[in-house]
Amino acid sequence: MTVTYYTATTLDGFIADPNDSLDWLMRQDLDEAGAQNYGAFIKDIGALVMGSTTYEWVLAHNERTGDAWSYPQPSWVMTSRELPVPDGADVRFAQGDVTDIIDAARAAAGDLGVWVVGGGDLAGQFADAGLLDEVVVSIAPVTLGAGRPILPRRLELKLVETAQNGAFVTARYEVDGVLKEDRP
Amino acid sequence: MTVTYYTATTLDGFIADPNDSLDWLMRQDLDEAGAQNYGAFIKDIGALVMGSTTYEWVLAHNERTGDAWSYPQPSWVMTSRELPVPDGADVRFAQGDVTDIIDAARAAAGDLGVWVVGGGDLAGQFADAGLLDEVVVSIAPVTLGAGRPILPRRLELKLVETAQNGAFVTARYEVDGVLKEDRP
Repeated sequence: MTVTYYTATTLDGFIADPNDSLDWLMRQDLDEAGAQNYGAFIKDIGALVMGSTTYEWVLAHNERTGDAWSYPQPSWVMTSRELPVPDGADVRFAQGDVTDIIDAARAAAGDLGVWVVGGGDLAGQFADAGLLDEVVVSIAPVTLGAGRPILPRRLELKLVETAQNGAFVTARYEVDGVLKEDRP
Repeated sequence: MTVTYYTATTLDGFIADPNDSLDWLMRQDLDEAGAQNYGAFIKDIGALVMGSTTYEWVLAHNERTGDAWSYPQPSWVMTSRELPVPDGADVRFAQGDVTDIIDAARAAAGDLGVWVVGGGDLAGQFADAGLLDEVVVSIAPVTLGAGRPILPRRLELKLVETAQNGAFVTARYEVDGVLKEDRP
């Protein structure tokens, strides 16, 4: 029942460049059986939640590559717009507050976890609501200087484990909550 | 003779918060004999280069704590202003391009390394000039959402080693150069 924000990021904290490109990510060396690999992660996921930018990125990526929608899990897309749904996809559009869909997502996930796919502000909305349990990152050896921020909030995390996977540093964090106030 | 940007950062790529506070950093658990510890790092450093904001932060910090200037090494401060110099400090003010001071800093360092203390834009100026060899980071389990960026450039790095030290993920990177162009 864990709610996990699982994402790749640059060393300077961007999950996509200013044009929403992931080319800096796709060319990195990765052991697909290594630490925090996607295959091991996704088999324990029972429901997905993503923002509309992420969803549209996946649709455009699949159109470009010819890939099919790859998630058998129910997938909530937070959007106020009408968006297409790929063949065979279990996509459920929702708008408003993440607290309004978390019960349904958790129920759909059953004993499995909920994956907050992104973007960063959606993960932040889960954190704001106290609903984000984990942040699991693969840090690519790249700086972009600008782009889509990984998690635009002031948060305390707790490092649970870290390793190397190919070109990436991997790290798993529990979310401890809002950053403690600085000394006056 | 290695030129190293050695710094702590948040998971989202900030080296200080918007008020230049490091309180989020100071309270983290750290093994002072552990991976990438400061004591082992500084003994191989023969010269420092820092920006004026970093220098003024150190001066203010020392005034608040009563600490003395802690660097016996010659320290270049990039500034166009007149700034105070602590008792016993070997501080050399410079302005303009980092290429103008690198030869003097390297000569002063001798067989030892040059530490680019920060901030991020100064490290970026070294990278722009092809003068930055390494980025060595300790990643604190914190997100800030805003603040002083670690390295506001598009750069390719190469992960050399990574480990855990207390609450931190540590990572050492070689600088490979400007980020390769994305696919058209």
